[in-house]
Amino acid sequence: MRVKVFQDILEANDRLAEMNRKTLAKHGVVAANLIGAPGCGKTTLLERTLVMLLERANLRPGVIEGDLETSRDAERIAACGVPAVQINTQGGCHLDAAMIQAVLGDLALDGIDVLFIENVGNLVCPADYNLGESFKVALVSVTEGDDKPAKYPVIFRRAEAAIITKMDLIEHTDFSVDMALRYMRAANPNLKSFALSAKTGHGMETWVEWLEKKVRDQGAK
Amino acid sequence: MRVKVFQDILEANDRLAEMNRKTLAKHGVVAANLIGAPGCGKTTLLERTLVMLLERANLRPGVIEGDLETSRDAERIAACGVPAVQINTQGGCHLDAAMIQAVLGDLALDGIDVLFIENVGNLVCPADYNLGESFKVALVSVTEGDDKPAKYPVIFRRAEAAIITKMDLIEHTDFSVDMALRYMRAANPNLKSFALSAKTGHGMETWVEWLEKKVRDQGAK
Repeated sequence: MRVKVFQDILEANDRLAEMNRKTLAKHGVVAANLIGAPGCGKTTLLERTLVMLLERANLRPGVIEGDLETSRDAERIAACGVPAVQINTQGGCHLDAAMIQAVLGDLALDGIDVLFIENVGNLVCPADYNLGESFKVALVSVTEGDDKPAKYPVIFRRAEAAIITKMDLIEHTDFSVDMALRYMRAANPNLKSFALSAKTGHGMETWVEWLEKKVRDQGAK
Repeated sequence: MRVKVFQDILEANDRLAEMNRKTLAKHGVVAANLIGAPGCGKTTLLERTLVMLLERANLRPGVIEGDLETSRDAERIAACGVPAVQINTQGGCHLDAAMIQAVLGDLALDGIDVLFIENVGNLVCPADYNLGESFKVALVSVTEGDDKPAKYPVIFRRAEAAIITKMDLIEHTDFSVDMALRYMRAANPNLKSFALSAKTGHGMETWVEWLEKKVRDQGAK
């Protein structure tokens, strides 16, 4: 019974996600759904990525920020000079397609090539809810431990890319990149992976280049 | 409609939680529900706490471990010489009262004074599901950022105690304990707070003493 209710919710969500996908495609927007635990560094990665994209001037970015409460992330992003809208889930543990649909009209989509959707900090629930994104990106920080892809495999199965963040802190932890990559590949052999520090900038170039190629290949503008 | 379904689920859960609460009370067991993001240090805090409790020999601990997949946490705990059972939620984002009810019979409750329930790594959903615990403990690690209690206030509202973990890493972050405590108190003025490192042991004594007093005051054995 409970599983049935959940399936109904997911199917209704998938239908709305498909509508979002068509809206985004019509405007030639490639959308990345960023998923990771609270404090794994999603907003900091996003800030650094936006600054680099603005400098390179190849792609015009936009951002949808998801949080339980507060609009501090959208404010951080707007400070980078990028169009941003905030969704507050009022305690909800994930973004869903209806929330995205409700705010897509607030963004001038024709002026956006790549739309970043920063999900609620949660490594579990957001994996189940398609938003109409082009691909999902899973984040795990070195301070969380290298076993996280083994313990939370679903998001790594469904993501196209995974980013190991806060590499500047790795010497203070017992995180093994090899071990984390092994668990990630066990979940998803096709997963593209990056290890970087948004703080020092180390490894950011490879990620941004992959992103630019991805948007060029998938975008229609 | 969706809210209604969610309320029905929560009410059914609360009824089962009440049954668990009675079972635990009958055996004089005080139960702590540990809630925090993936990789915030729940299992490491638990290991160190168990070792200290065993050394002090005032309280007999037991553990229920919740994870999406794998039994590695229960194995880590069993290695400490403490009775432990593992719940795998098969992708589910939180423990619920029915899961706890299903495993309570696997623990010799008369031989347990304090039962730690380590929830699934998630700062959001577990806050909504009472398990029949005596109190909730919210964890946040310094590497997650001091704004987490502002962005995820619900769990801090419902917890009796909050623990700032990984204090040994604070010098490598811009985490402000004062700021975190301010956000915690805004969510819950009565919240008892601790800042510690389970790795170095610094601050552990205060937490364990609070815990022992709590169990003595609430336990019936």
